Amino acid sequence: MKVTVLGAGAWGTALARLLQTGGNHVTLWAHSPSHLDELRRTHRNERFLPGIVLPWEMRLEPDLSSAIAGAEYVVVAVPSKSFRETTRFLADFSGVVVSVTKGIEHRTGLTMCGILAETAPQAGRAALSGPSFALEVARDIPTAIVAASADLAMARAVQKLFHRPSFRVYTGQDLLGVELGGALKNVIAIAAGICDGLGFGDNTKAALVTRALSEMRHLGVAAGAQAETFFGLSGLGDLMVTCFSRLSRNRGFGERIGRGDTIPDIMAGLTAVAEGYPTARSASELARRLNVETPITDEIHATLYLGKHPALALRDLTARDSKPEN
Amino acid sequence: MKVTVLGAGAWGTALARLLQTGGNHVTLWAHSPSHLDELRRTHRNERFLPGIVLPWEMRLEPDLSSAIAGAEYVVVAVPSKSFRETTRFLADFSGVVVSVTKGIEHRTGLTMCGILAETAPQAGRAALSGPSFALEVARDIPTAIVAASADLAMARAVQKLFHRPSFRVYTGQDLLGVELGGALKNVIAIAAGICDGLGFGDNTKAALVTRALSEMRHLGVAAGAQAETFFGLSGLGDLMVTCFSRLSRNRGFGERIGRGDTIPDIMAGLTAVAEGYPTARSASELARRLNVETPITDEIHATLYLGKHPALALRDLTARDSKPEN
Repeated sequence: MKVTVLGAGAWGTALARLLQTGGNHVTLWAHSPSHLDELRRTHRNERFLPGIVLPWEMRLEPDLSSAIAGAEYVVVAVPSKSFRETTRFLADFSGVVVSVTKGIEHRTGLTMCGILAETAPQAGRAALSGPSFALEVARDIPTAIVAASADLAMARAVQKLFHRPSFRVYTGQDLLGVELGGALKNVIAIAAGICDGLGFGDNTKAALVTRALSEMRHLGVAAGAQAETFFGLSGLGDLMVTCFSRLSRNRGFGERIGRGDTIPDIMAGLTAVAEGYPTARSASELARRLNVETPITDEIHATLYLGKHPALALRDLTARDSKPEN
Repeated sequence: MKVTVLGAGAWGTALARLLQTGGNHVTLWAHSPSHLDELRRTHRNERFLPGIVLPWEMRLEPDLSSAIAGAEYVVVAVPSKSFRETTRFLADFSGVVVSVTKGIEHRTGLTMCGILAETAPQAGRAALSGPSFALEVARDIPTAIVAASADLAMARAVQKLFHRPSFRVYTGQDLLGVELGGALKNVIAIAAGICDGLGFGDNTKAALVTRALSEMRHLGVAAGAQAETFFGLSGLGDLMVTCFSRLSRNRGFGERIGRGDTIPDIMAGLTAVAEGYPTARSASELARRLNVETPITDEIHATLYLGKHPALALRDLTARDSKPEN
């Protein structure tokens, strides 16, 4: 297949490599021409995927329109805040667009495929989501993920496109649920990181994350997703690994907040976006609009945007009167 | 309240300390009189709870009948394999017995409260379960847990007994579900540890644990538990922390299996029981009897009891034809 990957961060590059080694013709586009030049020169993406050699055959194309021309599939792996402007170039594209970006648009409350419905109305839409650290995928460590599309045949086509012996792709039709699971868990990962940074234990974090999955599910169902989806790879699976793994960017972001670092300081040191930060705001907006109680998301929002001290946020969370969980 | 705790391992000791500092009159019994002597002499349980000073007021009683006499509540914290013989002493006890032991009896397929129905027929029965490393509880790190009893009033009484500012107790009525969640997750923790020991990544482990929760739920529902319970603290919460935390004994047991250590060698070095080991056998038996497919449990059983190489077990698991998860 002719596949174009938009975005040469860790995830875009890892997937471009996977698709190329799977026998596809891959074009990789990046926002920054100098970043692409470095990839061309070194055959590596040392900043985002240290130690991984990229396939020689991959085409690196700095011009977005040229990159898209002739593609059968376009995989979008840009940060959520650039998603709308980048995918405007897909206005006339009639192949399949696969979003691998996890986020919720500020103000509109749209997931990435929701944005695609507006920016790429001729195209088929699917999302790929699940517990999948890019560096592990680039090292061919066994990974399982979900390809979701409202159209099952399209989900199956995407499954076939990505499937490899070490990259097992399941299919699903609850596109919204899969996207919301992937997006909302990043907010919870920040909460889990705050818990770590404040010096709480694994008991505390496990209790927080258990409640969080229930919160994600309630918000998702109110938005039109299916409850069951949140217990799959893109919900529970991704949530668990993001909250407990050392490798998680969003958890690490929260850990620094918990330790007392300021957001500008943390941001200055990040090589890649912590999507949980913008998502905390849009998820909190979405919950208010849908009239769903989301105490964890709200406390994270208050910590990140309203200057609430993280220790107070955690205290207010644990002090809430709580219903039996089981 | 007058409370007797049977078993002075990490969990029994941590709960005895919690109950005593909560203003109860606590008697702690241990199988080994010399172990109890050491606690009396040092006011510590250094072997199981390093660094924790125990309350002076706690009564330490080496005679089981004397320990039980006059108690309103008996908390049983002995290994599952000693549960039946220990609780035979409760034949005439008419207070409330709270099991904090996680296991399934070999051959009978009974949970600990199932055993209690036979050994302590006059007593009320409840279980306390959830993500709760003993050492963190002993350090007053915030923890949330479920007190379950078929009788809601009894669950509430147990909630009240244990509740502390840093130990939040929820109530539930699905006693069987809470017990099975706590027991089955230890088998999965061994699988997760094997995954670590073989050098797989967090992606692999997250996929495994996501499938495992669904397996636990199917087995639990077939046994008569409620599906929802497995998404609570005693299912998902405990599963997650046991599979991802460095502190987990069962995960550590599996990690050594994955690295190629033999079971006798591992056993020789353990100070405390890895309950997942006996539970793998009884869970596998139970699944066969109930005619439920439990591929993960079966592979762990084959690895631990039938000499199957852990790498082959993991390969056979990932090679299984799989249905869409979402």
